[in-house]
Amino acid sequence: MRRLKATISYDGTLFAGYQVQPGERTVQLEIENVLTKMHKSEKVKIIASGRTDARVHATGQVIHFDTSLSIPLDRYEKALNVQLPRDIRVLSVEEVEADFHARYSVSGKRYRYIWNCEAQQSPFRRNYTVETNGVKPDIEKMQAAAQYIVGTHDFSCFCAANTSVVDKVRTVQSLNFSWQGEELHMVIEGNGFLYNMVRIIAGTLWEVGIGKRDAQELEGIIASMERGKAGKTAPAHGLYLEKVFY
Amino acid sequence: MRRLKATISYDGTLFAGYQVQPGERTVQLEIENVLTKMHKSEKVKIIASGRTDARVHATGQVIHFDTSLSIPLDRYEKALNVQLPRDIRVLSVEEVEADFHARYSVSGKRYRYIWNCEAQQSPFRRNYTVETNGVKPDIEKMQAAAQYIVGTHDFSCFCAANTSVVDKVRTVQSLNFSWQGEELHMVIEGNGFLYNMVRIIAGTLWEVGIGKRDAQELEGIIASMERGKAGKTAPAHGLYLEKVFY
Repeated sequence: MRRLKATISYDGTLFAGYQVQPGERTVQLEIENVLTKMHKSEKVKIIASGRTDARVHATGQVIHFDTSLSIPLDRYEKALNVQLPRDIRVLSVEEVEADFHARYSVSGKRYRYIWNCEAQQSPFRRNYTVETNGVKPDIEKMQAAAQYIVGTHDFSCFCAANTSVVDKVRTVQSLNFSWQGEELHMVIEGNGFLYNMVRIIAGTLWEVGIGKRDAQELEGIIASMERGKAGKTAPAHGLYLEKVFY
Repeated sequence: MRRLKATISYDGTLFAGYQVQPGERTVQLEIENVLTKMHKSEKVKIIASGRTDARVHATGQVIHFDTSLSIPLDRYEKALNVQLPRDIRVLSVEEVEADFHARYSVSGKRYRYIWNCEAQQSPFRRNYTVETNGVKPDIEKMQAAAQYIVGTHDFSCFCAANTSVVDKVRTVQSLNFSWQGEELHMVIEGNGFLYNMVRIIAGTLWEVGIGKRDAQELEGIIASMERGKAGKTAPAHGLYLEKVFY
């Protein structure tokens, strides 16, 4: 038995999310189906760094699984890509120690959130960016608000209510905004993220960017530890899991 | 009654093509449904510059239709976009003379064809470019071959067999290749195009680019007037109708 770590990318548009759910098309299910076929129907289970919700994308999700097959790694990658649907791609496969765990060994993650601020809507970016109907926010204000978030805090205010996690203290190492043409990108890195945390941060800082809130309000929002004080949860299809650090 | 000209864009991925076909989702059907609803069930028919096949995209298709509604043009555009599915967008609406005809008044068209030559496949461009598995063609050879196509010729060799068109003489004004990052773009302008002509040109020049044919062969292919002498028809999803000239 070898333990393999695979870095994968997926277009979340047509998935009900990462994790297997009865009757739904999920990323985990598609990959496990291919691996099980490769292992002559011996069931193979994969573990990811974490789940992603329906319509959320990944450009650098990481999974691990154990395999009894002795195919070379580059052929393993090709064999997976040939059989996987085109909205999932395996970017790399490497052999890791038996104690590597895609979820428990994570030391941090990077996410990207993209708004498309073009005045004229395009039919081509609709599933990959959140369109703002031409509204262009003030990114200096968003960046000013971001400074209250960077650091180690109890992020209860940015955590969806339906979670079983008790300790909500996390460290955000960086949170930066930049324009790429008419698309606004938010890139956030941290040691761990609560359920919906990136999308609630995106939604709250968006409200700062369009002048609905002041940047300084963030201090009070975080201190309140109340989800209700923060802004709306930004839509799923603007979010990308970009990198998992180990 | 006013005659309106609308410039539209669509993501061809989920359409069985432009033209209405029984039981299929088409661009024409979606637009006519919205217009008919806006006209209180009085049936409105639209005419396009020409049809596009299943999975072919448009960034500048043009249609015309007659309307009894007296809404201002900017509100007309918004009303259409609010009701249309997100994979069709109206880019502009203008009033034209009663003798304007989206098909018969066409003086030329511009198409774009895109190959994605990244070595590592991505799940995000699969419907919008033709992936080459990292193969990078020689665009100088493709450009050399293009010179045989530019000009006025009988293009029977680049016309799909199943066509009723008799006169196959057309003028190609320009045909240029360029790299945009790792994507190869072919842009072709002409006074008119036969059925599948751009895709057969793309497929034939691709074969020149990867060394399967010499650039000079194009002279004989065109002179033969035989479809069988040219290359394969390139896939539909790499093709964009970019501009219609009047």
